[in-house]
Amino acid sequence: MLPGPTNVPNRVMNAMLAPIINHRSEDFRILYKRIIEKTQKVFETNGDIILLTTSGTGAVEASVVNLIKKGDKAIIPVNGEFSTRLADLIDSWGGTAIRITAPFGENPPIEKIEEAFEANKDVKALYAVYNETSTGTTIRYMDKLGNLCGKYGSFYIADAVSILGGDELPVDKWNIDICITASQKALAAPPGVSPISINERTKKYMKSNVSPILYLNLNRYFKYYLEHTETPFTPALPLYYAFDEALNLVLEEGMSKRIERHRICADAFYSSLSTLGLTPFAKEDARSNVIIAFNYLDGMDDKKFRTLLSEEFKVLIAGGFGNLKGKVFRIGSMGEVTRYHVMRTISSIYSAMKMLGIDANEKALSIAEEKLQNL
Amino acid sequence: MLPGPTNVPNRVMNAMLAPIINHRSEDFRILYKRIIEKTQKVFETNGDIILLTTSGTGAVEASVVNLIKKGDKAIIPVNGEFSTRLADLIDSWGGTAIRITAPFGENPPIEKIEEAFEANKDVKALYAVYNETSTGTTIRYMDKLGNLCGKYGSFYIADAVSILGGDELPVDKWNIDICITASQKALAAPPGVSPISINERTKKYMKSNVSPILYLNLNRYFKYYLEHTETPFTPALPLYYAFDEALNLVLEEGMSKRIERHRICADAFYSSLSTLGLTPFAKEDARSNVIIAFNYLDGMDDKKFRTLLSEEFKVLIAGGFGNLKGKVFRIGSMGEVTRYHVMRTISSIYSAMKMLGIDANEKALSIAEEKLQNL
Repeated sequence: MLPGPTNVPNRVMNAMLAPIINHRSEDFRILYKRIIEKTQKVFETNGDIILLTTSGTGAVEASVVNLIKKGDKAIIPVNGEFSTRLADLIDSWGGTAIRITAPFGENPPIEKIEEAFEANKDVKALYAVYNETSTGTTIRYMDKLGNLCGKYGSFYIADAVSILGGDELPVDKWNIDICITASQKALAAPPGVSPISINERTKKYMKSNVSPILYLNLNRYFKYYLEHTETPFTPALPLYYAFDEALNLVLEEGMSKRIERHRICADAFYSSLSTLGLTPFAKEDARSNVIIAFNYLDGMDDKKFRTLLSEEFKVLIAGGFGNLKGKVFRIGSMGEVTRYHVMRTISSIYSAMKMLGIDANEKALSIAEEKLQNL
Repeated sequence: MLPGPTNVPNRVMNAMLAPIINHRSEDFRILYKRIIEKTQKVFETNGDIILLTTSGTGAVEASVVNLIKKGDKAIIPVNGEFSTRLADLIDSWGGTAIRITAPFGENPPIEKIEEAFEANKDVKALYAVYNETSTGTTIRYMDKLGNLCGKYGSFYIADAVSILGGDELPVDKWNIDICITASQKALAAPPGVSPISINERTKKYMKSNVSPILYLNLNRYFKYYLEHTETPFTPALPLYYAFDEALNLVLEEGMSKRIERHRICADAFYSSLSTLGLTPFAKEDARSNVIIAFNYLDGMDDKKFRTLLSEEFKVLIAGGFGNLKGKVFRIGSMGEVTRYHVMRTISSIYSAMKMLGIDANEKALSIAEEKLQNL
């Protein structure tokens, strides 16, 4: 129950054993094309898709180093570790990040973002971390940010690394120019490949603005796909096979059913853990359906609690990140999460709390069961 | 028999099925440390090792973007596709590549490299592509380049992507500051992870010279390894498991036996295919023991020949790269290559030539058998 990598179904794991083929052959081209087309369905986009052999960070960086030039301004809501890191990257790459900050666990009001556009008419791009893994916070006005970018003529980049496949994200409908995710989160594949979508106008811009980098140079990937249906550099073939099979599972379930399943599981977690006596870290209108973060009660030691969960109950969850270390715990409720996972996690948390001598309301379990009826 | 990805033994493939674990856990730390220590043995270095989740190109780029600053001069022998690409990368990153060219299939005389050092006393680095995959050419004075770099106070970077594990490369003994390889070549693991070694003085230099990039930022990897024995970004876990097992196979065989096996197989290929009536592409003193490149005879059509090999004999070899397309074929004789692979490839080439109506001397087979006696 980690915030990634998540559990990978056996069908997906076993797919890795397919033969190592030549990545300059027709067999590979058929595989790659199939992956791209399925990813387009999952992203709900007609734009280009590129599959990078990197972690999500590599793909996020690609969205910066191929777009941002020296002095370019980029607006970015900052309310956690990953949005901070992205803003810092924009700066270190020579751009100017305009940070719209909010306390961790909250999103900045969208009005503050519009004000930043008003005050900086030459803003080139808006970067938004859709789901802040470090705090369990999701931006709930991603669609409106697309409208803002349209109004102010800015590129719109969505970092959806830890959420795509687990919550709504119709890339074209929301006017997202670049969308990034990773294999090992809500898509439930092993880590190591990261898809990125780019629409026509952004591709066109990149074509006329050459970047000095090589491995993350998106122009090379476009060119190789167009001319050869191949990747410019050797792909991580077993992970391509696995990702292909993970996409099959996603499409067999259907995106809307999958998103609803995540919503129901998240609802069960929030209601049930609150009943136990815990309080969610994120404000209600910003709560994530894929990363469930809760504050520790007094006397709940992070290490003791998570060691109990792991050793006594074989349930792995994550602690806090950076400043939140020791203050919150985080559950990844994404990918293959079902009634079994939710109930087992909640009952283990209940027991661990009891073992630590903390009062916990056992009604939490029936409340979760009730919420999960709708699955 | 491709020049990579190469055949991966079942033991290595099956290792990928180990459970997806938390990359911020003790289980991962044990795995990562073990991989690093084994890689040090294979590289024959006491320097740091970093394992990147990228293809070889990603690791090669890391050696440029973490070291080269605007205006820095770097000498580089250029005699094929990959050395050309590396020189271009140095330039596009803002450095100045001093290309010491040689015709494809040859290495520039080392004297020309020393002259370049004499003419440019402020050279910061020497980059050498140890094995040029595109032409089957290996630089046979890598040890002496280390001495030159010492003499002129330059960093020494060895791109050993397509050769490490198949030929001699004692990193510390040859005074190599940065050495790069990839998993899917002579180490016979699946593609997607690339190890890179960095010695103390280079690490120190990098620490005081921050690079604007993120995913390939080696300082981050040093820091995370030192402080946590972890990678800064999510690693491609199944490929780590596979690489770990591939290293077990390498160390069980022993590096010197492994190198000797590659030498014997290469010798069998060169002698035998020459007997068939073909001529090697590379000059004798530059011939690779891992990529065997031969010129086509008149009337040997690349497509027809390789289609016959593939469809009739299930043997995959590669064609020429860039300008050499249609002019040469290339055999990857690396990783798991044994008597079986060599004989099957040679006999298939013999038959395919016959099927194309080309005179081929069948003595080639007994000559190969003889050479392979020493395996």
